[in-house]
Amino acid sequence: MPETTPQGAVPTVAWRSASPDGLPGAVHLLDQTRLPHASVELACADVETLRDAIRRLAVRGAPAIGVAAAYGLVLGVQGVTDDDGVAPALAHAANRLVSARPTAVNLAWAVSRCLAACAGIDDRRALVRRLLAEARTIHAEDEAACLAMGRHGAALLPAGGTFLTHCNTGRLATAGIGTAFGVLATAHAAGRVARVYVGEVRPLLQGARLTAFELAERGIPGTLVPDTAVGALLARGGIDGVLVGADRIARNGDSANKIGTYQIAVLARRHGVPFHVVAPTSTIDRACPDGSHIEIEERPAAEVLGFGGSPSAPPGFPAWNPAFDVTPAGLISSIVTERGVHRAPFSF
Amino acid sequence: MPETTPQGAVPTVAWRSASPDGLPGAVHLLDQTRLPHASVELACADVETLRDAIRRLAVRGAPAIGVAAAYGLVLGVQGVTDDDGVAPALAHAANRLVSARPTAVNLAWAVSRCLAACAGIDDRRALVRRLLAEARTIHAEDEAACLAMGRHGAALLPAGGTFLTHCNTGRLATAGIGTAFGVLATAHAAGRVARVYVGEVRPLLQGARLTAFELAERGIPGTLVPDTAVGALLARGGIDGVLVGADRIARNGDSANKIGTYQIAVLARRHGVPFHVVAPTSTIDRACPDGSHIEIEERPAAEVLGFGGSPSAPPGFPAWNPAFDVTPAGLISSIVTERGVHRAPFSF
Repeated sequence: MPETTPQGAVPTVAWRSASPDGLPGAVHLLDQTRLPHASVELACADVETLRDAIRRLAVRGAPAIGVAAAYGLVLGVQGVTDDDGVAPALAHAANRLVSARPTAVNLAWAVSRCLAACAGIDDRRALVRRLLAEARTIHAEDEAACLAMGRHGAALLPAGGTFLTHCNTGRLATAGIGTAFGVLATAHAAGRVARVYVGEVRPLLQGARLTAFELAERGIPGTLVPDTAVGALLARGGIDGVLVGADRIARNGDSANKIGTYQIAVLARRHGVPFHVVAPTSTIDRACPDGSHIEIEERPAAEVLGFGGSPSAPPGFPAWNPAFDVTPAGLISSIVTERGVHRAPFSF
Repeated sequence: MPETTPQGAVPTVAWRSASPDGLPGAVHLLDQTRLPHASVELACADVETLRDAIRRLAVRGAPAIGVAAAYGLVLGVQGVTDDDGVAPALAHAANRLVSARPTAVNLAWAVSRCLAACAGIDDRRALVRRLLAEARTIHAEDEAACLAMGRHGAALLPAGGTFLTHCNTGRLATAGIGTAFGVLATAHAAGRVARVYVGEVRPLLQGARLTAFELAERGIPGTLVPDTAVGALLARGGIDGVLVGADRIARNGDSANKIGTYQIAVLARRHGVPFHVVAPTSTIDRACPDGSHIEIEERPAAEVLGFGGSPSAPPGFPAWNPAFDVTPAGLISSIVTERGVHRAPFSF
């Protein structure tokens, strides 16, 4: 079974405190904007620093930002000293964190769950302790859910297979070994993976920067391809399955995930390659009937006009930069959660 | 009718000489590796400098490298002073130029045509003059072919349409206004284009660097999208046609073009969007029965592992970097050449 954080590595999200009861504390993040060149730990001692880290993708991946936001509520209230101030501080923190990114359902889900857990607690210190306990529970549950997804998903994959994944869904995207990547890591730990291909995933290159980093970190044979080469790769043959994560799954199985997922699903279908979505049940939004109801975050044009500080297009050129797309349920072979494998037709 | 080189701009390929008869001369190129930041003219006075420019894509685009290589043969022989040396020098230059890049048929086509044009000419000076005249003819014919393709292709497009193109097929890729881009420029000059979308086209970003530059240069409204967003763009609707070039077209219509073309063709078909290939007849390889016989150039992994000098992936990580893919004829609505519009089923 793969370890959540490989030995000597900086964890993706951690709550650190000088005190044995954990209070006061800070959210420590591996700053993913610096990968793969430097593993820098970023301390967030207040809500706005954490919100900014979420917005600029220093921490990203739906489950990871859910865990980070849960700890973020503790940041919002741990310094409040008057009893009357705690409820407004909590509401303010919840609002600021939920609004950091709109598409990932886990963010709102984690915050709602923590608010529900401390509802009715009047004592300020008891409330803060309850919030921290709930955040830690969400963290541990996510870790366990990743291991379960890894187990269920790995059983779907042919032994010795070569797979294609998209974006980053590993330990850097979750509080555990990952979703789609966790399946690959689990299958690899059992000696069942020949190679994992991943696209670069422009504009922010989470495939090149993060998934290649995680493949190298775990010694899984990997190959990077330009996003333009995914079609040629699937047409060439030899890919035994596509595994991707999800940021929001509608009741009918339509799945929002990192931009580029939809086109891979269309190509996988054309070439008869199974297409698996791997995500915790917290990603399933039962209030959302289908993909047309999923709000798609559009990010700044500047991300597309350059890379790593170098401009690549004429300055000020217009760009369209949606962060996600929706893969219709009809293109999905299976949806793997911590509870097991769901097969089409989906109805959650 | 759009101008081949907009006023004040550096031409893509030009033969320059201090002498009125053009000899000796040098091939001058707009160094496309420096775009869009700087318009630098690069002088190639010998075959190896030109070969290197072709290999590192300072000049690229099948028709443009055909014209450059034709002039390159003149570079290979203009300095030869003994009559016995001219045949070996010509053969050596031809070999060096043809081997610079394997996929684009125009390179080999232009070189063969020039060799045929001077076959049987024994006089050294007459041979050099003939080669230069033939190169100039190829250059002028390409310019005329682009205008004709523009005219034929523009007639296919709905007025006021929004289009998607891929890679760069404009004046920077040809000796004229371009192939697919030339169609868009012609339609735009007639007031019939609302907007042109283009992907970035990793790894070398010819869409972001070159096509966005050409759109801006001609005042055509354009929008850049990440290569990952092409599927979402076509799924969203509002794209009235896809126009791409080709580097080699087989007898049955299978078309090799810049990597990423195939996946756009698959997505265009799924969303009912016409998919047009625009290329001069010199791109049609009648000796090639179908796409499976087209050799696909694979380029260095280093191009995928970073951009503009910034590494984006762990150093030494494996990468697969095919320069082209093959779009099967069945996904192509029409093939536009300077002679007119060919419709499926194709048979050249």
